[in-house]
Amino acid sequence: MNLANLSKQDTIIAPSTAPGMGAIAVIRVSGPEAFGCVEKVFHFPKKEKKLTSLPSHTTHFGFIKENEKVIDEVVINLFEKGKSYTGEETVEISCHGSTYITQKIIKLLLQDPSIRLADPGEFTMRAYRNGKFDLAQAEAVADLIHSTSEASAQVALQQMRGGFSNKIKELRTELLNFASLIELELDFSEEDVEFADRTQFFELLNRIQKLLKELIQSFEWGNAIKNGIPIAIVGAPNAGKSTLLNAIFNEERAIVSDIEGTTRDTIEDTIRLGGMEFRFIDTAGIRQTTDEIESQGIKRALNKIEQAKVVFHLIDTPRFLKENIDPSNSLNALYQEYYEKFSGSKTVYLLLNKTDQIKDEQISGLLKSELFSQVFKCSAKEKHGVQEILEQLTKYAASAQQMESDVIVTNQRHVNAMETALEHIQQTVEAMEAEVPGDLLAIDIRAALQSLGSITGEITNDELLGNIFSKFCIGK
Amino acid sequence: MNLANLSKQDTIIAPSTAPGMGAIAVIRVSGPEAFGCVEKVFHFPKKEKKLTSLPSHTTHFGFIKENEKVIDEVVINLFEKGKSYTGEETVEISCHGSTYITQKIIKLLLQDPSIRLADPGEFTMRAYRNGKFDLAQAEAVADLIHSTSEASAQVALQQMRGGFSNKIKELRTELLNFASLIELELDFSEEDVEFADRTQFFELLNRIQKLLKELIQSFEWGNAIKNGIPIAIVGAPNAGKSTLLNAIFNEERAIVSDIEGTTRDTIEDTIRLGGMEFRFIDTAGIRQTTDEIESQGIKRALNKIEQAKVVFHLIDTPRFLKENIDPSNSLNALYQEYYEKFSGSKTVYLLLNKTDQIKDEQISGLLKSELFSQVFKCSAKEKHGVQEILEQLTKYAASAQQMESDVIVTNQRHVNAMETALEHIQQTVEAMEAEVPGDLLAIDIRAALQSLGSITGEITNDELLGNIFSKFCIGK
Repeated sequence: MNLANLSKQDTIIAPSTAPGMGAIAVIRVSGPEAFGCVEKVFHFPKKEKKLTSLPSHTTHFGFIKENEKVIDEVVINLFEKGKSYTGEETVEISCHGSTYITQKIIKLLLQDPSIRLADPGEFTMRAYRNGKFDLAQAEAVADLIHSTSEASAQVALQQMRGGFSNKIKELRTELLNFASLIELELDFSEEDVEFADRTQFFELLNRIQKLLKELIQSFEWGNAIKNGIPIAIVGAPNAGKSTLLNAIFNEERAIVSDIEGTTRDTIEDTIRLGGMEFRFIDTAGIRQTTDEIESQGIKRALNKIEQAKVVFHLIDTPRFLKENIDPSNSLNALYQEYYEKFSGSKTVYLLLNKTDQIKDEQISGLLKSELFSQVFKCSAKEKHGVQEILEQLTKYAASAQQMESDVIVTNQRHVNAMETALEHIQQTVEAMEAEVPGDLLAIDIRAALQSLGSITGEITNDELLGNIFSKFCIGK
Repeated sequence: MNLANLSKQDTIIAPSTAPGMGAIAVIRVSGPEAFGCVEKVFHFPKKEKKLTSLPSHTTHFGFIKENEKVIDEVVINLFEKGKSYTGEETVEISCHGSTYITQKIIKLLLQDPSIRLADPGEFTMRAYRNGKFDLAQAEAVADLIHSTSEASAQVALQQMRGGFSNKIKELRTELLNFASLIELELDFSEEDVEFADRTQFFELLNRIQKLLKELIQSFEWGNAIKNGIPIAIVGAPNAGKSTLLNAIFNEERAIVSDIEGTTRDTIEDTIRLGGMEFRFIDTAGIRQTTDEIESQGIKRALNKIEQAKVVFHLIDTPRFLKENIDPSNSLNALYQEYYEKFSGSKTVYLLLNKTDQIKDEQISGLLKSELFSQVFKCSAKEKHGVQEILEQLTKYAASAQQMESDVIVTNQRHVNAMETALEHIQQTVEAMEAEVPGDLLAIDIRAALQSLGSITGEITNDELLGNIFSKFCIGK
């Protein structure tokens, strides 16, 4: 986004629907001259009317004309100042969805010197500027548009509708009050008065710390919701990792084939189950991997495991049985070192592959391993047991969603600001405990206020705004 | 399009904007239950209202909810029965432009048993069924959406707004009246009366023939507008054909770079100049061609020339001068045979390539050749003279558009029907001149009425309709 446009209040135009051919396309015009500019090219079928004379939230059929030539038959929606998305006077033009026609209408309107092409995110930026919502909410609009699963849409929508903004704002206001009192004390420093009740102040700092810690913690989960739950498939060469991956994608396609177009990315590395997206970590690498998991090679897979929330540990069962005389002991012995430390933080499934030609009694020892959340028998090649694995992932997604608290942070910028704020709050607490002078205290409090304010945009700067809104698509 | 759905009047839903990510997406719901179905999932921010109680052409902000869960914040547009695109009760839902959310809302509404997913073109088909426009106009809607140049958009819009439909309908009604009179004569055949005035009837048949001939003739031009004006580049190997093509595409890109996204296809074989699209015929072939134009090989290029409306005849000027002692005579002598027959129907430009290192007096003879519409000096390699060639094409496009009559046929189906109708009208005229009995006359008249009626859809059948509307995109 062009920083020079950040504070402009002129009239802007952009296509608001996805590019490409469709039945209709929508062009949005917003700003003080929106009605006036559209009026010059829009013509009613019979008697011309002034757009300003018509009520807000009404829809009108008519023609876009360049001189006497009809460019298209369109429908326009009128939104009065204060009653639109941006908060400004807005006209939405629904035209025939040819790229040519959309561009033609935009070019025609751009001939008007009082109108210019909107920067990406500029409509939402204006909504923020006009107090329609705060910065964290504005950022959630972009997340909502980019959402690809039920969970990511829900969490974006929740944030767009307020989310943690109010809590942060309330606590910040309280902190601001204390800050004022402490600054006031500085003015009377020679008299050694305390306007700010230290007990109450401690209590507030504790509440702020508690909230920030909760929110920061929610980010690990929020990030998984937004970008997909990372899954690692680890296993020795020829354990059947790529065969399993193919079987999973085929099976998932079959399961969800009744819900057209929504459940499957063209990227072969993502699946959606139970309203959540699962993302296979570095599957390209896995396909070509040469890491020897069994006994020696697991260290090389550790990085992959550390990034994951879910691990599929795949073993070539016939080979394992052949090479390890006492399967039950050796399995635990082999993996204890690695998986014990993840218990609680990761869900590790043991997948006994190639079990289609093995008798159950041969693997009864393996099935009971306590190192793993669950053990599955499967044959990736024959597609046996794959359905059960996907059902387990669906259950995982469902229970994960129930764990969700009211407030989930999904945005790296917010977490960074929260971490900085938390640090300064902790320093404030320490400073108070050490009974440092008020002027030193005030520095940390101001820094915390600054960080908290940057989340919701109460404190901001052009560079930050430019950064945030340039990630938006044009027309939003 | 599913033929079983052709005559249904149930409630249908589809996304109406282009697929993909955008700021907003529009979902259209049309049919007797449109208000009722949307009402079940749409909730006003404060007090709930009945959609039927609200005036047509109004816009309302609210929430789409699945049970208590908000799916999205949306804006809906209401259109009463008789006042919408389809002529039916219609709701347009503008939601956030994520594919996930669009699909989620559609799936939610599809849970209602009284609503189903619309077939491609079904909204327009209903508009046609409800008399909002005739079949030729409905077909023009699809053309308008597919339009990629000013001329193709204009001609589609003109047809959508009536075009030749009215003329065809008027003449058909007159023909129908005469047909009735002639059928009446058959009932009184023993009395040898003539209810239908033969002079007036001849006069009508002449008018119909005249119109049909004009319309059929306009198709060659209409087709060029719709699919691009075909240009052939012919020339001996090493004359510089592919170098010229590259120079043209680069130059055009430079000329039009200020009009983003509208002027240039990814297909390297199409350029847009002066509001028209030009399409290079079989350029892939041209690039690899081995046809020896000069003197021997032109016959092999003839097919290409025949398809074209504009021909670039490119010669390797230095080589030509070397091999042909008297350039002026030999040029005419070489090409007279081929280009004389095209004069009037095609515009052939002679491009003297590689003239950057040749003195003007050497080619003064070539410059005057009367076989060609115009002669240009150029150096495709150095990009000299390419600009002038494109300017000439722009002028050609402009003058071509002025030649346009009111009525241009761009649709192969219409032309086929017109040709059949014309044939039967001509047979009717011949039959009348031969004074054949009325019952034989009536057969041809009925056939002509049938063909004329199929153009505007006064006479139609399910297969034809299915065929036409299945070419539409979904949501239109």
